[in-house]
Amino acid sequence: MREDPDRLRFEITARDGAARAGVLHTAHGPVTTPAFIPLATRATVRSLDAPEVESLGYELVLGNTFHLLLAPGPDRIAALGGLHEFMGWRRAIITDSGGFQIFSLAHGRVADEIKGRRGQRESDGRVLEVTENGVRFRSYVDGTERFLGPAESMGVQAALGSDIALVLDECTPYHADRSYTARSTERTHRWLDRCLEWHERSGPPGQAVFGIVQGGVHEDLRRKSAQRVAAAEIDGLAIGGTLGRDKPEMYGVLDMTLPHLPDDAPKHLLGVGEPDDLMEGIRRGIDVFDCAVPTRLARHGMALAPLPGQRFRFDVRRPAYAEDTAPLVEGCPCPTCRGHTRAYLHYLSRAEELTGARLMAVHNLTFVERLVAEAREAIAAGAYERYARAVLGGAAPWGAPGR
Amino acid sequence: MREDPDRLRFEITARDGAARAGVLHTAHGPVTTPAFIPLATRATVRSLDAPEVESLGYELVLGNTFHLLLAPGPDRIAALGGLHEFMGWRRAIITDSGGFQIFSLAHGRVADEIKGRRGQRESDGRVLEVTENGVRFRSYVDGTERFLGPAESMGVQAALGSDIALVLDECTPYHADRSYTARSTERTHRWLDRCLEWHERSGPPGQAVFGIVQGGVHEDLRRKSAQRVAAAEIDGLAIGGTLGRDKPEMYGVLDMTLPHLPDDAPKHLLGVGEPDDLMEGIRRGIDVFDCAVPTRLARHGMALAPLPGQRFRFDVRRPAYAEDTAPLVEGCPCPTCRGHTRAYLHYLSRAEELTGARLMAVHNLTFVERLVAEAREAIAAGAYERYARAVLGGAAPWGAPGR
Repeated sequence: MREDPDRLRFEITARDGAARAGVLHTAHGPVTTPAFIPLATRATVRSLDAPEVESLGYELVLGNTFHLLLAPGPDRIAALGGLHEFMGWRRAIITDSGGFQIFSLAHGRVADEIKGRRGQRESDGRVLEVTENGVRFRSYVDGTERFLGPAESMGVQAALGSDIALVLDECTPYHADRSYTARSTERTHRWLDRCLEWHERSGPPGQAVFGIVQGGVHEDLRRKSAQRVAAAEIDGLAIGGTLGRDKPEMYGVLDMTLPHLPDDAPKHLLGVGEPDDLMEGIRRGIDVFDCAVPTRLARHGMALAPLPGQRFRFDVRRPAYAEDTAPLVEGCPCPTCRGHTRAYLHYLSRAEELTGARLMAVHNLTFVERLVAEAREAIAAGAYERYARAVLGGAAPWGAPGR
Repeated sequence: MREDPDRLRFEITARDGAARAGVLHTAHGPVTTPAFIPLATRATVRSLDAPEVESLGYELVLGNTFHLLLAPGPDRIAALGGLHEFMGWRRAIITDSGGFQIFSLAHGRVADEIKGRRGQRESDGRVLEVTENGVRFRSYVDGTERFLGPAESMGVQAALGSDIALVLDECTPYHADRSYTARSTERTHRWLDRCLEWHERSGPPGQAVFGIVQGGVHEDLRRKSAQRVAAAEIDGLAIGGTLGRDKPEMYGVLDMTLPHLPDDAPKHLLGVGEPDDLMEGIRRGIDVFDCAVPTRLARHGMALAPLPGQRFRFDVRRPAYAEDTAPLVEGCPCPTCRGHTRAYLHYLSRAEELTGARLMAVHNLTFVERLVAEAREAIAAGAYERYARAVLGGAAPWGAPGR
């Protein structure tokens, strides 16, 4: 770890057990933590423009190096003043390394794993070769051959001008065996060093870099990786890779990893953000989370709701909601719930109207923002356990005790 | 014509040649005219929710009887309190009769005509039979057989609870010969009577009814239809049917029709609303226009702009705009132009991101709203001709003289 307040300063303002509330001071303003990070995959949080995302209470979004590399390309975004300027977003941006998407092409997606499908998805381009230097792959946009290694990933993120860059890593899949995971984690560590060397020489002055801990579900690999990454000259830590087959295993991976990370460093749990995961992660000391779930569910008519027995969601397209004049979630402060009924959203979602996907995204992002905002309050009040238990038991975040 | 201020009162507040500015007093508030009516085809102006449409300055939207009949169905919308309540729109609504969509299935669309294709489009359901009583057709939603006649159309519009209903008519296509058009126009007149009989007995108290003038491009048929429709107990007039193969012919049809309509009645030009058509229609005394163009163009990356040589539009997906940091239209007051560059919209539109379609819709609807709002000002100032000439010559509505 290094401490360079010109790049990033993490201020912990309250603690409650292992949970903490804080402020991540970035080059584009403060981010209060615990925070959820909406995905602005292709320079937009799908269906919302930047002022709207800010109006929902968000201070940090995640841009995708892989997608932005392929179109419109880092040179164009740099020529247009960087990603903030390009998308009209004046708050903080974190960019991923592109590794997750590329290795998803190679390994198959998590959903494929769980369903027993593996290997490449034809529609998404192809990985041609993975070597010590990086990954050769074919663009899904125009079919051209591309290469992404540690320097290339950091170069793209420098061109995008994000406030926080993530180092290139291999996100090992659940089906990888221990030996593959061990070798892959070692390579990820070598890539970490090469990313930091590149960034030391050529990175933009105000950009922070987070290292990524890998090691699969193996306690010794996770411990070694945690210690190795924490020893590097990074500004913060991310936890990546497979987190297990189910939620108990995911929380177990956190429990075997977090004790080996410096307490006062900001910690990002990559690709995780369902309501129960937020509660469990915050309880263990995670500060920021990114996840596709709120926006992706919205496009499929799924609303987030305080329903622990139903994975905190329901499908508004179900016939039961066709004449239901209640809002998606009673008491929700979002414009969707204040202005529209389940019956209307049922109709719009079934008709696949853009307005439906958008109104659902506004609700889901509000629900998740409320979950973390109220968690911050609860931590400050020393009542986080009561709050988390209430939410996990089915209380709405704005109605849960502990605020 | 009838005059029933409980259903609709049209107040002309200023005149300038044949052009006039006024207020249409509906059961859901005033609509200042000349007005453009955005299409809320399936209970939403695509990608916008009701408060957003109102914030763009609109006081009247058009709901589609055909689409809402098939899903969610008039009974459900009635059970949910009517179309206003269903879609959360508190201002005025006009509903079409469903005839245009159904006869498009039978006759082929205008685009098909122009390109020499005729007949049914397979994906959109099928017309099974057209008789004196109405049209039997197959639903594109679930394949069931449906029937729409004068009583059925008025029944659906009564259930929707629109402020203004349109009578059922056959929109005769351009390729129909004089003899077919004459017979069709006669049937449309008989349907007018049946619609009014039904509405007299069973229509909602506050709902106004507009009759529709047909007659193709034939001067005597248009004159007879204008006189026949104007003699009926209606609250306003709409001009429908084919308006010719090109714009001069369309304006010619208006010139052969308008002199035979009562001057002080509100007049709706159906399905027309490109910028030059708005200027030419207002000049001749048209009060309201509806058109799919602003929202449909938006979904294809086309921006409305003061470019008379390019049909008042440009394609932001063209390579020329990839690094263009100007707004879509310099000086445009819309949130899209105030917050985003052509380069960003170029990228979003090419990537087919929902945010792109939405930002383009906000711009296009603002551009059209400004065209009619400034026309109202110009009429009040006795400077409409100067304003219209400036707009037709390429002035932006907010920069045109005559305001």
